[in-house]
Amino acid sequence: MTSFDEALAEIKRGAEEILVEEELVEKLKSGRPLKIKLGMDPTAPDIHLGHTVILNKLRTFQNLGHEVYLLIGDFTAQVGDPTGKNATRPPLSAEKIKENAKTYADQAFKILDPAKTHIVYNSEWLEKLGASGMIKLAAKQTVARMLERDDFKKRYANGTPIAIHEFIYPLLQAYDSVALNIDVELGGSDQKFNLLMGRELQKEMGQKPQCTLTMPLLVGLDGVKKMSKSAGNYIGIHESPDEMFGKIMSISDDMMWNYYELLSSRSLKEIAQFKSDVASNSVNPRDIKILLAKEIITRYHTAADADAAEQNFINRFSKNAIPEDLPEVTVSLDGAESIQVGTMLKNAGLTETSSEAIRMIKQNAVKCDGELVNNTKLEIAKGSTGVWQIGKRRFAKISVK
Amino acid sequence: MTSFDEALAEIKRGAEEILVEEELVEKLKSGRPLKIKLGMDPTAPDIHLGHTVILNKLRTFQNLGHEVYLLIGDFTAQVGDPTGKNATRPPLSAEKIKENAKTYADQAFKILDPAKTHIVYNSEWLEKLGASGMIKLAAKQTVARMLERDDFKKRYANGTPIAIHEFIYPLLQAYDSVALNIDVELGGSDQKFNLLMGRELQKEMGQKPQCTLTMPLLVGLDGVKKMSKSAGNYIGIHESPDEMFGKIMSISDDMMWNYYELLSSRSLKEIAQFKSDVASNSVNPRDIKILLAKEIITRYHTAADADAAEQNFINRFSKNAIPEDLPEVTVSLDGAESIQVGTMLKNAGLTETSSEAIRMIKQNAVKCDGELVNNTKLEIAKGSTGVWQIGKRRFAKISVK
Repeated sequence: MTSFDEALAEIKRGAEEILVEEELVEKLKSGRPLKIKLGMDPTAPDIHLGHTVILNKLRTFQNLGHEVYLLIGDFTAQVGDPTGKNATRPPLSAEKIKENAKTYADQAFKILDPAKTHIVYNSEWLEKLGASGMIKLAAKQTVARMLERDDFKKRYANGTPIAIHEFIYPLLQAYDSVALNIDVELGGSDQKFNLLMGRELQKEMGQKPQCTLTMPLLVGLDGVKKMSKSAGNYIGIHESPDEMFGKIMSISDDMMWNYYELLSSRSLKEIAQFKSDVASNSVNPRDIKILLAKEIITRYHTAADADAAEQNFINRFSKNAIPEDLPEVTVSLDGAESIQVGTMLKNAGLTETSSEAIRMIKQNAVKCDGELVNNTKLEIAKGSTGVWQIGKRRFAKISVK
Repeated sequence: MTSFDEALAEIKRGAEEILVEEELVEKLKSGRPLKIKLGMDPTAPDIHLGHTVILNKLRTFQNLGHEVYLLIGDFTAQVGDPTGKNATRPPLSAEKIKENAKTYADQAFKILDPAKTHIVYNSEWLEKLGASGMIKLAAKQTVARMLERDDFKKRYANGTPIAIHEFIYPLLQAYDSVALNIDVELGGSDQKFNLLMGRELQKEMGQKPQCTLTMPLLVGLDGVKKMSKSAGNYIGIHESPDEMFGKIMSISDDMMWNYYELLSSRSLKEIAQFKSDVASNSVNPRDIKILLAKEIITRYHTAADADAAEQNFINRFSKNAIPEDLPEVTVSLDGAESIQVGTMLKNAGLTETSSEAIRMIKQNAVKCDGELVNNTKLEIAKGSTGVWQIGKRRFAKISVK
């Protein structure tokens, strides 16, 4: 492969869709630094690994010499929820927005190169449009085109109200691309429609239309839902090295490859090598997972932190000789919301009776995920999963359902 | 009837719909001067009788002590057609708008009392909304509600594009009512949806909602289409007294009552008396039509002009003894666009041959609508109707179709 082909492969790595690839190739070949845009709401600045998927892609562009525009959507944030129906979206003050943007940038700079990152606020050009400029902008698209957007289509069909300003928001995002003369806009797969609006508006306003690159949503630790704070299946970039290590080691081997593709900065070549080593049994996938965990911890903490986390993990689990063939047990709650720890351990077959389990807890002989359990009344919630250990030799990975 | 009942009857006279009548009664009974609004585009200021229907209604309100707000929609006129698809709607300059508004007002003051008329421009408050105010306004209504408007519903169903700003325009009109705290808004029957937007927005913004009063569209001289310049079936308020007289005399007796209701300032009581006189054959409807013609000419010219027009009309037609039972003849063009005058007169049976017709024209013996015809090559266009006279005794009302 030529170096251009390799660069293009890195850009395409993990991407869900690129529109239009030939145009992107042409732009990349022009040799000038491209303007790459990512828009963000200045509302919830706490970043988890799910958010970093796109930031990693931006970093790839920066490594290739391009400029990143982090667009803070302060214009609409200052408007808030104008219908007044969504109490959780109050208007934000300019100060609060700046503060959130700074918090976001501080986190994003763990990944991005500050020297090639421009932080821009769209109120700068949107407020200047004035009332009549807003009318002219709204004239640039049709009602029918907006109703093609999946969520709008569904809401209209279901009779769920769509306020008219919601049809203007995609145009504002599009106008941001015009104002900055953007070459490539990135977004999650749910953003595709809005990104295309940018293309269309740029074309109509005489600019070269931006290319769009959508990234898939990262799957969370549960292996099912997308990673999000509300689903509780996330790894925050502020979490401690030990937490990060444990959480990454808990993902399945299959998911590990997806995480490698979307989160690692290792080259595609290296990852391909790992895969073939695992396939030929010449390496334990567990060791490859450790490499991923250490890479991520190094990024958000330090290399020393990563080493320490590895050591702690080994001390906690490996030295305690958790068997490779850890039995997996499911304990059913029969509809209840939780179960007492003693009953759970008995039902899982780790003790003969629940009172034996209680006695073991009192003797400091019970651990969960390497941590001592000393509350005999502990309730284990539905949906939890943990590696339980009684004494030195009894182990099980227990899922409570 | 009490005087309040009479006043209410005058307000309801000719009206198509009042929403909500009980609220209007309550407002009228409050004793305070109400704010009555009429919106207008500052584009085509040439007024014909069709436009005066609503102006007459405004005058009725003024006669009852209320204040009229003539709202000049200069904000959207300055925006023009933002889609750029309608070349006939270029943006108007502020100067041109003021000029058009003045021309309009000069004509409207033939009907309205200037002392109780406020001419207001909506750019004053709409431009101040700014870009974010426009977003907040757009949030006040839903896409589904807008798609209930007849023309939007049809266009959406037919796949005819609706630009998004078109959904905002009714809200701008509604906001005008909020900005002025309007009590009653008038409009043509095609404006009902937009007038109701005003009610809804006022309610939502904590104001007493305006009442709406829609007036029917005046039927033109052809008795079929609504009066309009493009249909060529109109009476402009700048036309000469003779033209006005002739045109009004040409309408049918049935239509005359509709014109009385919508255009005359005679009381309902007087009109009822006319009707019963005609019904009992104690008066010729033609004389009642003359009264209407003279009233309208007096309004837009002078009483002396009205008398002179009547005299001219009588000289032209009555003194020439046009028989009451004038024969009506239709000449078919068989698809052609026009016919030579000689051929037409022969086909209508007024002369034996077309050369006889030409000879009579040369002898100054042919009149049309009382005017001498001296062009032997005259082409009579499809759709024309006229009373033709050859010598002293040959008459026919000829329609060319």
